Parts: sequence; C-alpha cells; structure tokens
Amino acid sequence: MAGNTFGKLFKLTTFGESHGEALGGIIDGCPAGIELDFESIQKEMQRRKPGQSSIVTQRKEEDEVQFLSGIFERKTTGTPIGFIIPNTNQKSNDYSHIENSYRPSHADYVYEQKYGIRDYRGGGRSSARETASRVVGGAIAKQIIPQIKINAFVSSVGEIFIDKPYQELDFSKIESNAVRCPDEASALKMEEHIKEIKKQGDTIGGTITCVIQNVPIGLGEPVFDKLHAELGKAMLSINAVKGFEFGSGFCGAKMKGSDHNDSYNEDGTTKTNLSGGIQGGISNGMDIYFRVAFKPVATLIQKQEVLTNRGELIEQQGKGRHDPCVVPRAVPIVEAMAALVIADYFLQNKVYKND
Amino acid sequence: MAGNTFGKLFKLTTFGESHGEALGGIIDGCPAGIELDFESIQKEMQRRKPGQSSIVTQRKEEDEVQFLSGIFERKTTGTPIGFIIPNTNQKSNDYSHIENSYRPSHADYVYEQKYGIRDYRGGGRSSARETASRVVGGAIAKQIIPQIKINAFVSSVGEIFIDKPYQELDFSKIESNAVRCPDEASALKMEEHIKEIKKQGDTIGGTITCVIQNVPIGLGEPVFDKLHAELGKAMLSINAVKGFEFGSGFCGAKMKGSDHNDSYNEDGTTKTNLSGGIQGGISNGMDIYFRVAFKPVATLIQKQEVLTNRGELIEQQGKGRHDPCVVPRAVPIVEAMAALVIADYFLQNKVYKND
Amino acid sequence: MAGNTFGKLFKLTTFGESHGEALGGIIDGCPAGIELDFESIQKEMQRRKPGQSSIVTQRKEEDEVQFLSGIFERKTTGTPIGFIIPNTNQKSNDYSHIENSYRPSHADYVYEQKYGIRDYRGGGRSSARETASRVVGGAIAKQIIPQIKINAFVSSVGEIFIDKPYQELDFSKIESNAVRCPDEASALKMEEHIKEIKKQGDTIGGTITCVIQNVPIGLGEPVFDKLHAELGKAMLSINAVKGFEFGSGFCGAKMKGSDHNDSYNEDGTTKTNLSGGIQGGISNGMDIYFRVAFKPVATLIQKQEVLTNRGELIEQQGKGRHDPCVVPRAVPIVEAMAALVIADYFLQNKVYKND
Amino acid sequence: MAGNTFGKLFKLTTFGESHGEALGGIIDGCPAGIELDFESIQKEMQRRKPGQSSIVTQRKEEDEVQFLSGIFERKTTGTPIGFIIPNTNQKSNDYSHIENSYRPSHADYVYEQKYGIRDYRGGGRSSARETASRVVGGAIAKQIIPQIKINAFVSSVGEIFIDKPYQELDFSKIESNAVRCPDEASALKMEEHIKEIKKQGDTIGGTITCVIQNVPIGLGEPVFDKLHAELGKAMLSINAVKGFEFGSGFCGAKMKGSDHNDSYNEDGTTKTNLSGGIQGGISNGMDIYFRVAFKPVATLIQKQEVLTNRGELIEQQGKGRHDPCVVPRAVPIVEAMAALVIADYFLQNKVYKND
Repeated sequence: MAGNTFGKLFKLTTFGESHGEALGGIIDGCPAGIELDFESIQKEMQRRKPGQSSIVTQRKEEDEVQFLSGIFERKTTGTPIGFIIPNTNQKSNDYSHIENSYRPSHADYVYEQKYGIRDYRGGGRSSARETASRVVGGAIAKQIIPQIKINAFVSSVGEIFIDKPYQELDFSKIESNAVRCPDEASALKMEEHIKEIKKQGDTIGGTITCVIQNVPIGLGEPVFDKLHAELGKAMLSINAVKGFEFGSGFCGAKMKGSDHNDSYNEDGTTKTNLSGGIQGGISNGMDIYFRVAFKPVATLIQKQEVLTNRGELIEQQGKGRHDPCVVPRAVPIVEAMAALVIADYFLQNKVYKND
Repeated sequence: MAGNTFGKLFKLTTFGESHGEALGGIIDGCPAGIELDFESIQKEMQRRKPGQSSIVTQRKEEDEVQFLSGIFERKTTGTPIGFIIPNTNQKSNDYSHIENSYRPSHADYVYEQKYGIRDYRGGGRSSARETASRVVGGAIAKQIIPQIKINAFVSSVGEIFIDKPYQELDFSKIESNAVRCPDEASALKMEEHIKEIKKQGDTIGGTITCVIQNVPIGLGEPVFDKLHAELGKAMLSINAVKGFEFGSGFCGAKMKGSDHNDSYNEDGTTKTNLSGGIQGGISNGMDIYFRVAFKPVATLIQKQEVLTNRGELIEQQGKGRHDPCVVPRAVPIVEAMAALVIADYFLQNKVYKND
Repeated sequence: MAGNTFGKLFKLTTFGESHGEALGGIIDGCPAGIELDFESIQKEMQRRKPGQSSIVTQRKEEDEVQFLSGIFERKTTGTPIGFIIPNTNQKSNDYSHIENSYRPSHADYVYEQKYGIRDYRGGGRSSARETASRVVGGAIAKQIIPQIKINAFVSSVGEIFIDKPYQELDFSKIESNAVRCPDEASALKMEEHIKEIKKQGDTIGGTITCVIQNVPIGLGEPVFDKLHAELGKAMLSINAVKGFEFGSGFCGAKMKGSDHNDSYNEDGTTKTNLSGGIQGGISNGMDIYFRVAFKPVATLIQKQEVLTNRGELIEQQGKGRHDPCVVPRAVPIVEAMAALVIADYFLQNKVYKND
Repeated sequence: MAGNTFGKLFKLTTFGESHGEALGGIIDGCPAGIELDFESIQKEMQRRKPGQSSIVTQRKEEDEVQFLSGIFERKTTGTPIGFIIPNTNQKSNDYSHIENSYRPSHADYVYEQKYGIRDYRGGGRSSARETASRVVGGAIAKQIIPQIKINAFVSSVGEIFIDKPYQELDFSKIESNAVRCPDEASALKMEEHIKEIKKQGDTIGGTITCVIQNVPIGLGEPVFDKLHAELGKAMLSINAVKGFEFGSGFCGAKMKGSDHNDSYNEDGTTKTNLSGGIQGGISNGMDIYFRVAFKPVATLIQKQEVLTNRGELIEQQGKGRHDPCVVPRAVPIVEAMAALVIADYFLQNKVYKND
C-alpha cells in the first residue's frame, strides 16, 4: 500500500490499523514559530471520537495525541511533527467471526485479493479509525491559517434535508446537538431518524456541507491541481464518501448560462455565488462551499449474507460497536481535510490579494 | 502556475495557451515496446475537435498531433513522448474586446489577481483548448491497457435525462449522434434543446456518465489515493465540472445500509453494484461507473454585464465561436482522464487477480 | 522544514530530534507478505548505536525499535509501517552551555537563521541521531531484496588508506574490529590513530567504500534519476558527508578513454569495471561500488572559539559524549541508504534480466 | 523510462532523442511577470553547442530554442513554458554501423536490456544532446535569481590542474579560451593536451569547478533534501559524471576537526570556508563551491572491440563527430543544473536573511 501521504508542501503521512498498538502520523512542512494550542487539537479529537452520544458507536477510545517531535517550548520548530494516538480499547475478539469471511460492501475482500494478507481486526487499515490522524493534521493546519473559517455540518440524513441556504444558518449551533446540524428543527428529525434506524439494526446515509470563509483570491492551480479538484480528492478519500459537488454542483448541470453566471460588483466580488468561490480552479475571494455524500455504514447488526474464503455464502449476525450513521462523526474529518488542502495552497501560493 | 502534471508513474505534463503557437505535452513513464495506433489517437482528437456538428462551436482547428520523441519505428521506446498540436486557426482579434474586462464566471479576473498578468486571447491557459493535450495522453494510455473498456456518454442536457440504467444502453450508438447520447430518443430531445438554447444566445449544462469495464481487482490505494478519489480529482480538473459521484453517489446518501449493501455471489462478484466497482478505494472487479456534472458555458452571445479593470460595470455583447453546451465535446476528455487514471494504477499496482 | 521523505515507491519519512521523546518514521510502499526478521533489524541498530567500543562515543542509547503498524503475525501487510525509537538517555543539561552560542562548522547558526527558533539540545534535528530511523528503513529494505549483497566498510581514516582493491578484501571481516575495516593491518593502524586523536580532544575524517553485488541489469532511470545520481544524493544526505564518487570516480577524470572503457565479454559482462556497475544511469549487472567522504566531527573536546547570539566570540570547552571519528558508526547508515535506493528501483523497474 | 523531471517547485521536464525531430521541455512553476532576456538564453545555448572551436566536435547544430507558451509580450505569465529545439543536422547514417552492436562503456547495451528496444541513432536519449533542454531551463532559472552569481569553469583536463584556489581566479576570463579555464597558463596546456589526445583518436577526462556567490542564508532542507545533496544529484545526473565533492570534499576526509572547523567572525561569516558555504544542508551565506569529475568520452575514433547483439566480439572503427574532451562544453550544463537547484530552493524557502 502506498498513498498514505496527503499534501504537497504541508504534508501529512499517516499509519496505523484500528487494532494495532497505535495510530499516528508525521506532519512535514509545518512552518516554524507557531505557538500551538494543544487544547484545541484535543477538542477536535473529541469531536471525532466514538461514544460521544447515543447516536454514535459506544466504543470508548481515549484518542489522546502524543507529540514526539517538532515542537519546542510549545512552538513548532520547522522540523517534522511526529505523533501517535495509542489504541487503548481494542477488543480484537469482537472480530474473530470475520477472520474467514468477507462482509458485503466492505473492503475485506479486495484487501485480501490485493495484498494476499489481511489484518481482519476491526477492518485494519480500512477502518475509519485511520481518520483520527487526519484530524490531528487538520487541527494543526487550522492553526497556521487562523484567519480562515471552516465550518462543516450535517445537511441531510437519509431523506431529511435542511431546506435553507447555508447563509441562513447559525454555525455556532453546529455543536449544540448530537447530529451536528445547525438547523435545530432538522437536527431533531435527523436524531429521531437515526435512533429509529439503529433500533432496526440498520444504518443510514447522509450528506455534509462545508463552508470555507475569508479565503483570499488566488489559491489553487488552474489545470490539474484546481482548488476544487484537490478539495474533491480530499473528500473522496474519506471513508464511505460517494460524491462531491461544489457551488451549484449537480443542480448547475440543469441550468442555463444566463441564470448560472455570477455577475460582478464593482469591487470584484459577485452578486451571486453559484461558482462556489472558485473560478477556473482558483479561489475568487467569495465563500467556498461544497457538499459531500456519505453512503450508509456497511456493517449492520441485522443478519446478512457474507462470503467465506472457501467461496460459501453464509448468514452472519453483525457484531461490534458501530455507528448507525456516519455523518455526525465525519463533520470534523471533513473540516480537517479542508484545512489540509487550504493550508497547503497557502504555502504553495504566494500571490494573493490579502497576503 | 504549477500543477500541470497529472499522474504518478504514467505522467502527463501539458503546456499551451489557446492562442499561442502550439499546445503540447510530455508523457513520461510510458512502457517501452508498445506499437502505437496513430489513427486511433487522431480519431480521439477529432471527437474533441470543434466544428464537428451544428451544435458545437464552428471554430476550425486542425488539432493534428505531431510526435517529436519517444517513438521509433512506430513503437514506444520507453523514453518520454513529446508532442505538439499547432494552433492553426487563432483569431486573436476576436478577443480584443475583453483585454480590459472580466467576463462573469470566467477565470479572467482571478488570473489577473493571481499572476498580475493575463494572456487574454481566448482565455489563454484557462481555455478548454488545453484539454486537447489530455486527449493525446489519454489516447496513448488507452493503448497500454487495451483490455479495459472505457465508455463515456452524455446522460443529461439541462433537464433532459436518459431514464435507463447504463446496462440497458448500447454503447456502440454513442457516436451515432451529435450529442453523444446512446439513447436515441433522449439524444433527439437533447439536440433540439441545445439548438433552441443556441438560438437564444444562451448555454446549458449537462452531465456525462462514464463506465469502465474489465478492470481487475486491486487497483487503487486504500487511504488518500483511493481509486475513486483520483478519478474524482481527474474529472474535477476538467473545465466547467461542478460535481462527481460514483456508484450510488448522492442517491446513496439517502439509503439504508440494508438496501445499499451489495451481496456477494460465490465467486466474489456482487449481485448489485451500488458500490460502483470500488470498495475501500480499491477496484473489486465489477463495472466502475461515475457521473460528472458540467455547468453551462459561461460565455454567452447574449449581452451581459462585465467588470472592467477600472472597476466599472459595462454591458458587453459576447463574441467568438463558443459551444452552447459543453458535454458532447467533453465526452472524449472524460474518457481520456479516466484512461490516464486507470493506466497509472496499472503501473502502480502489481498485485491483482487478472494480471 | 520539509524534505523528510526519501524514496519514490519505497518511501521512508522520518521525524525526531536527538533529545525529544522519540525518533521514528513511516515506511510507505513496502510490499505485503514479507516475513520480517526482527533480530536482523535490531542488529543493524546495534551497529549504528553509540557506545559499542572505546573508539566511539560512550553515550548509552537503547535504540530499541517499536513497530506500531503494518505488520500482522510477523508479516508485512502492505499498509504503512510506523515505528518509534524512544530516546531513553538524553542528558539535556549537557547542552545548556550552547543554548546561546553557535559552534563552528555546526548547523546551530543556520538553523536559527532559517527557522528563527532552535532546539539546541544535542543538535536537535541536525544530530546524527536522526540516522537511527534510516537504519530501520534500510534494514527492512534489505529484507525485500535479500538477493542483493550490500557491504560497506571503512576504507580510510585520516591519511591511513586500505591499499587494496575491494576484490581482495574479505567482507566477513568487516565486523571483526571496532573500525569496521576488513583489512586487519589497516584496521589496527586506524584504531590506534583514532585513539591518539581522541586523546588530543580532536576528531578525524575518513571514507567509506560500499559494494553492491548481484544487482540485475536495468535498475535506474537514464536522465535525471540515474541510479548513481540517487545513490549520490542518498549518501550526500548523511551527516558530515563531503563527497561521493563511483567506479573510477575522480581518478577517472585523469584518464584516457582507451584506458577507461570497459571491454565486453561475449556474455555482456565486462572485463574491467571502471564504470562501477552503472552505464548511462542504469545498472549493467556488474558490481556497483562507490566511495563516500566524511569530514571530521565538528564537536571538539578541545577549547574552541564560538559565536554567541549577541555577536561575541568566546572560548568554549566542548562537552558531551562525541565520536572522535564518525566513519565506523556510519558504515550501517551507508548500507541503509544504499538499500533504500536499490529497493526503490526494484519497485520502480519491472524490466530487468534476473527478475 | 521515467525520471525526466527535475525540481520540486521550479520543475523542468525534458524529452527528445539526439536524432528525432526535436528536443524540448516544459518549465512548470516559473513565477509570473518576469521579463525574459532571450538573447542571454540563446547565448547559453551557444556555449553548449558543438562546433564552437577546434577542440570540440564539429557537428553543426543550430540549437535554436522556440518558445511555444507561457510568455506574453516577453513576460512570463505563470503558465508552463513549453519549448522545442529542432534537430536540424542529424546524420543518422553515421550510426548505422552500431545498429547491431554495443560500444564499450556506452549505454547501448543496458538500454536494449532494459527496454527491449533502442533508438540507436546517435545514442538516442542517452546522448548528451539531451542537455540542451537543461541549458534552456537553467538559463530561465538564472533570470529569476539574477542576484546569484554562478560561475563554472574547467579546473582540470587529464593530469593538468589549475593550482590556485578559485579566489585567485578571474571569472571574466572563463570565456576567453576554448577550454573555459580562467587560468590562462593552464588553459594553454589543457588545449594542447586535448589536441594531442584528439590526434590519437582518443579522449580524456577532466573536472569542472563551480562557484555560487551571493546565496542568502537558509536555502536547503536539513535531512534528505540537503542543499548539497540536491546539487550532487543534479551534477551526477549529467552525462559522464563520476564524482561530486563540495567544500573540502575528499581532502576533508583526511583532516582533523581542529584544522577543518571554520571559525566565525562576529557577523556570522566564517574566517575559512572548508564547509563550502553549506552547514547541515543549509546555505550559510558563504560562497558555495563544488567540483565535478567527468570521465573520458567513451566514443573513440581508434579501433575498439564491440559486442554484437549475437554475442560476438568484433573490432570496430569509431565514426561520427565526437568531443575528445567533454568538460569545455559541460561548463554551461553544470551552471544550468546549479541554477535549477538554487532557483528551486528560492521558491521552496521563504525564511532567509537577505530576502
């Protein structure tokens, strides 16, 4: 397996399986002299952590980050930041039942085909536990661009959608409910729905919307490394993601140019923002916003047919502690990946308006 | 500007503005000993070329590729393949009217802010003419993986959608109409609609669906470089793209796990394919399919308000020869980018079933 | 600081300062299914470790590697291998005397100028302790190419040189003396010389020769990424290295072509090997050999003038436990870096004779 | 073949065989707004060109660069700069005699083994003609860092060495003689020697010294991407290079620390400069200097034994027009590669004293 590094100048490389000794990573390229706020890093970890509410998995993981290098007297030194997150709560025996079988819509089968070997405990490297390292990287990325405001939130669960544009939402309410939906009426419905689904031993999909504000003009490279192409890759690299759209997105594909074009104001801002803050791959100074689709978690507590490694189909009861809906816990991951992308372009791009 | 290279082991680097002397590129990493079919490369170029039918722009560009290296007696030698595509039909005076103004939803403004200088002729580097070089790269990529079948087609124009699953379509009909839609009834409606839109001096968006068949199990890297994340980045890097979804996509976000999971057959194939041929970032041997959203072309022939570089808003009549709908010509570009991604993973991945 | 990753497909990323909590790294791209020999990894660590003999520094560091991921039931899984090496024996107070001063020919001054901050304890990231992580990477690299024989040894200390070609040396004697010189007579002289130098509170330079055998034809890329260019970069990245030459090296620059050319045998091997096993950047199947020059360690126990951060020159007595000559302990580091380069090309190159 | 790109942020990718239609390349990452001096680019090309004097090959190549993109009204636009250098003087029939044979110490044999195919005309991609594209890249790199002075010169031919330190040489004399040696007495001897060697149908090696002045403190990354490691790789990637040393180099390996350390002055400069302007991989503001060893050209006009592709050894008379000594023409190539390295670090490093 390769491809465990994200970023060009602000680079995060991660390692770790869900049931090994520890997860961790290395951040290379972090500028020197930044006084880190460790509490806010740990706070991001708490947001991703299992067991925060009744609608997420009840596994207890401490998720405490230990920094091993790159920091001296609380400041970054410019050297690589190595960190580990010990796995303190692995119950590997929860997984012995899948040692010889492949769960539907899981990576079990392809891992074994690709590598000829599989750490079956808790999904191994394919477990979403890997994203804990991303949250560390994103939390530090946020601290090198404090002027940028990144807010992600749950915009739909199953068929329940927020029916307002993001401009009418109060982002300070995102953390006020277990779903991480800033629209309280929708949040309530979503929460009920997730509980219902959980009772059935089933799972449900959802979407997350992310809004990035205060971005200067000029981030992004115009051809292959367009700003939205990197954001898209970042989001599609998160477990369970099936789609990405920014600005007008798939709706834009139904529109006419005369309706879709964003007219300018005299100061170069635009009256509308169907472009989603990006023109030709380059930020234009307007809000960047995008939406990410997450499939329902594949692990069901209901009985399901699984494939054994002897080519038999057998019924199996799901075990383990799993999320009935992944989006509430994925909110900080979306923000972390967005922060990694934006911080990287800040290091890459030196010609922008607000610098 | 950086970011003009795509790929890790099969690398395409491109250069060229729409109204410079030539476009071109370098393919580095192409295996040696492949006998190239130049006709089929040129045929791909024809598919992308303007002026093919009444519903696309009537600019005449020869788009003839000249190969300068890397090929000896029709075979690849393993050395880098340099190529150019001379610009034979630039009418730069078509663009003098925009020298001092920024068109809505174009990259004009951000280029000038980012670089402090702009080649305003025909959009310069931001012109979709840049994609001609991608088509060359993709056409060669296809020839190193001839067993892989890549078929893209127009699946919607504005509100007109094909209402059948791709399995019921006959891909051999894609090239039978100007829209590149294999469903003849839909194609007819789409063509009419585009003509209508063109008459209004307006433009319209659309979507392209792409199906990749015969992919072996094991392509893709499980964490940041997931197969669908690279496909997503590739598609989002194409001009005018606003969204990407694969398999169940955004619909999957509304579903329950018990409906979404793809049950196995005894041979490891699956009964359904909502996963879209990719599990945990790795191909599972089933068809890969995805959908790409394109916004309506920003250049209108209608009058529009533009911003001048003195901060004034003035009315301007569109000029130049432009597509009323970008999707018919974008079909070969989607295929080219898909071929680049798949060929690269073939070089990266050595452990797969069908090798 | 960036640049903490080495390799293209077999990638080692390292972190850690000499007096932080731990050093460590991530190996990404290691093939799956390799049964690791942990003892031989630890043995390589012992070779690099301080305190092995009276001619090296008497610091005691355990240098015990802890693997945190990527290995399941002693086999590599294809996922990234994370590891740490705890720093158990830091005596940071040994370094308080240099907090405000810059030692001659050390990196102290440039670090502070570049980063505006410096972890002065033990040289921080510029300490050769960083190379412990390289030895872990190299030890694993060696295990994926067990057929390749890599032998480095001390070929000179100060003015004392081995006066035989490497073909007349018995590599099994390398570890039989503290200097790591396979020629026993020379080894004895070198050891005496180092002891003498140490008594003076001084240090001495030296060279290491490395021979790589059983390399198949075809490793290396012919233009910028020539095999010897990567080997050169690898060696020059080791602390204290001042020069690199391969094959005939600097002597070759004095020769005539008629003397320098290596005539062929009928089987494609060559009668002589002034080329050093590499032609045009590509291995030709003959032994690869090169020589690396190390300067004398900059830290003296003698008094020296140092520069303070207030711009004053003051006399200072050296402290700490330092090597009088770096080459004996650098032997495993040279081998490790060579192994990393060769293993990477094995993954990159698929067309070679002995595959 | 891969590895045709050099640089991280200022990237040069090259293509082209000696006897194809054209050589060329793409420079990606060049900052926008730089007014290019095309004459000085062409002047660098002339320095590398064959046929400049009686001691270099008499092939006539125009070596005229044509820029195809990335430049508008003489200024760089920030988009990739594509360029070609047409091959106007290929005499492919000069090479028909080697179609089926491998010349000693040439890349013929390894190319055929590695790729299974070989463009035998003039060495194909392994020809030093490839370096013409590097000179274009280097000439533009020089223009983005005009404050940096890069001077390379021939410091030895065979056994004839300049016996003065570079500080006593007048760099303005480098171009005053055909050898490119600023010491006139040495130049005369070298020129005579080369003529003598040429008469014998033989060739001779040599060294080039390069001095880089006005470099600010702080260029270079301290671990794998040390400034001298990148310079070393750059030089070792040039055809015929066998060794690289900087500062005290291989001599430093014979010295004691008390003699080798560079004492500070109060302003942070050093009294001596055995370090060669680089400490711990980072420039320290002193002159950077290094020496590069070139082997004698492998192509002799004398008769030599060659290996045929049927495994026979036969005598063959050399043909073609070749340099008896490569170093005079390699001077601009060394400078070009140095400029590429330094320009890249300027883009990478933002924290240095003189910025």
